[in-house]
Amino acid sequence: MARINDHYRKLQAGYLFPEIGRRVAAFQKQHPDAHLIRLGIGDVTLPLAPALVEALHAAADEMGTPEGFRGYGPDRGAEAFLVEAILEHDYGSRGVSLQPEEIFVSDGSKQDAGNIQEIFGADCSIAVTDPVYPVYVDTNVMAGRTGPADAQGRYAGILYLPANEENGFTPEPPDSRVDIAYLCSPNNPTGSVTSRENLAAWVAWARARDAVLIFDAAYDAFIQDPALPHSIYEIEGATECAIEMRSFSKRAGFTGLRCAYSVVPRALTGATASGERVPLNALWLRRHSTKFNGVPYVVQRAAAAVFSPSGRKQTAEQIAYYMANAALLRRGLGQAGFSCFGGENAPYVWARTPAGLSSWDCFDRLLAEAHVVTTPGAGFGAAGEGYVRISAFNSRERVEEAVARIRQAFGG
Amino acid sequence: MARINDHYRKLQAGYLFPEIGRRVAAFQKQHPDAHLIRLGIGDVTLPLAPALVEALHAAADEMGTPEGFRGYGPDRGAEAFLVEAILEHDYGSRGVSLQPEEIFVSDGSKQDAGNIQEIFGADCSIAVTDPVYPVYVDTNVMAGRTGPADAQGRYAGILYLPANEENGFTPEPPDSRVDIAYLCSPNNPTGSVTSRENLAAWVAWARARDAVLIFDAAYDAFIQDPALPHSIYEIEGATECAIEMRSFSKRAGFTGLRCAYSVVPRALTGATASGERVPLNALWLRRHSTKFNGVPYVVQRAAAAVFSPSGRKQTAEQIAYYMANAALLRRGLGQAGFSCFGGENAPYVWARTPAGLSSWDCFDRLLAEAHVVTTPGAGFGAAGEGYVRISAFNSRERVEEAVARIRQAFGG
Repeated sequence: MARINDHYRKLQAGYLFPEIGRRVAAFQKQHPDAHLIRLGIGDVTLPLAPALVEALHAAADEMGTPEGFRGYGPDRGAEAFLVEAILEHDYGSRGVSLQPEEIFVSDGSKQDAGNIQEIFGADCSIAVTDPVYPVYVDTNVMAGRTGPADAQGRYAGILYLPANEENGFTPEPPDSRVDIAYLCSPNNPTGSVTSRENLAAWVAWARARDAVLIFDAAYDAFIQDPALPHSIYEIEGATECAIEMRSFSKRAGFTGLRCAYSVVPRALTGATASGERVPLNALWLRRHSTKFNGVPYVVQRAAAAVFSPSGRKQTAEQIAYYMANAALLRRGLGQAGFSCFGGENAPYVWARTPAGLSSWDCFDRLLAEAHVVTTPGAGFGAAGEGYVRISAFNSRERVEEAVARIRQAFGG
Repeated sequence: MARINDHYRKLQAGYLFPEIGRRVAAFQKQHPDAHLIRLGIGDVTLPLAPALVEALHAAADEMGTPEGFRGYGPDRGAEAFLVEAILEHDYGSRGVSLQPEEIFVSDGSKQDAGNIQEIFGADCSIAVTDPVYPVYVDTNVMAGRTGPADAQGRYAGILYLPANEENGFTPEPPDSRVDIAYLCSPNNPTGSVTSRENLAAWVAWARARDAVLIFDAAYDAFIQDPALPHSIYEIEGATECAIEMRSFSKRAGFTGLRCAYSVVPRALTGATASGERVPLNALWLRRHSTKFNGVPYVVQRAAAAVFSPSGRKQTAEQIAYYMANAALLRRGLGQAGFSCFGGENAPYVWARTPAGLSSWDCFDRLLAEAHVVTTPGAGFGAAGEGYVRISAFNSRERVEEAVARIRQAFGG
């Protein structure tokens, strides 16, 4: 008799975004004429930059010729031209020296963040910040590293570190035993960015305890303040304790093209049951080569074009456009009675709801009264209760319209 | 202390193809002037069909416009135009009726075949044919469903069903307890195709025992004999016991573009620890939406173009080209003293080595003396010993040259 993975049954009713989708669809069915403005899911909206479209065309033509056709990619799935561009522009330019075999190109940071737990033991203890990107938690639930969820949706066996106004939404490392800690900076959902000091404290903590940090930097391109770190490897010793993930999704409009990468340094090891040290790079390579077949060649060409002079200029303009939206949202929501955080070095504004509204009540009211779709903070964890996440990914016109409607609905 | 997943340590030295890559690289280093002909890894070689290149261009242009830009895909990651084409051409045309929500589009059958085990319980018992595509086995080893490997590379806890000349390389269902059985037809590596009767026996067996069949039909487009089944759903009752996987990789040259799909019928269920029945479709949807973000829009457009009139014509011509190669290989290898199987409804010829050579010895001799790269049968399992797999994916000229060289090296 085929038995199912019972751990799946512990998962909460739905992944957050499908639940939002259901509520929005129900609202639209009742109000077919309502013109909704979507500031929820955090999907980019600007068209793909011309340099990237050009790269797609060139690669498509190559694929149509006997000389230029590409089948399976290289052994690790990553084309050398892309890895070299990543090493130079994302790391070399910041004084970080990494090797090509430490870069693993993938089809998304969600995938990497979800898959990375596979190379760790079933008994590893996990810490996440709260609120948190649900994928870190759900994939550990599916793998059986947790007990059931409590009434607040917190799973037994996961340590939740509250990210709140008191700690600037960047918690300090915990005292209790943790083997793997997930950090996300710039943070989804709070829009906060870890300081160099906070990150150094995490690295020192991980090294002292032989813990591994999973550092998700999918939003690093939105950092405006030059004092803030983009990579955990800017902190000395981090190659011995941290895996880093980056994505082209938000920085270059790749949510529909799919390209990201993970860094698993050669110096990073984990322990076997008998205490032997094993390089995590070798384990991740085994996982990668057994369960993945590389990112489409045409997409890798487009990703490499992000680093070309015109690609850098065009994608920087897109980021500036979204960040101007974020500034409008911060100001407008503030006028409407929300206390706003984030949105200065990240495309997300994390807004405390006015008058003590719950996250979902505020979500529902924004939907019903302003026809604006947001993301309820409670969907990201218990400590997100009382907040909503508002995304800067939309057109200027719609953001302005959304702000006007929210101010009309909530006052200000 | 971060502990690793110790199950990874049970895996054999390397995934088969990296090991071949190492041997080939070593040979080439010693013989830089040798002109190698690669009939090993089974990667397509013909350029992408014009209809598909055209679809890529059109989709790239769409992505560059405000109206046509696509970010995250639909909820399940699959575009309706592609799902509809799949339902019509791959199933409706064979009298099989499936629903859109039963189709899950992915970036590869390797991925699907590797990931599907996640939705099953850790204590499910597994059966595979031997020889076997290594991914079925390795991913279950990684998940902890096996003990260590023996001297022949067989893992404790997996039931290996020998596929040999006596049973036409299509084993019958076993008598012992098995919860999940992997079947691949047309078969990689043996090139054999299951008959309707054999498949019906498997479906009856699975239904009687409440087992699940994972049916990998990645090579179905190469079937020439109209009596052979393309889909397991051509067998009555299969929607209650089988998951099917299909790929665009070999049928339309997508190894470098990445698109495939799995069918998880709504009628298919598994049991919880308490005996409750749970639809596997819902579990796979949860896995899919949590750990995957869809196939690039441009790639889904190219995949849909495979079903257009020109796409069907052009890809059919490619398949005919490869099958003519397979016929040449069968004849030439036969003349050189190999007994050949497969290659009539599949792009692989499964050749018994002459004079009792071992698989790897024959591989090494073909490499050293004919400068032809093949795949040693033993790399696919103990029962593959004494065979090599030879792929029809190459140009006619190289296949002819390979045959001439092999005949010169082995006689005939």
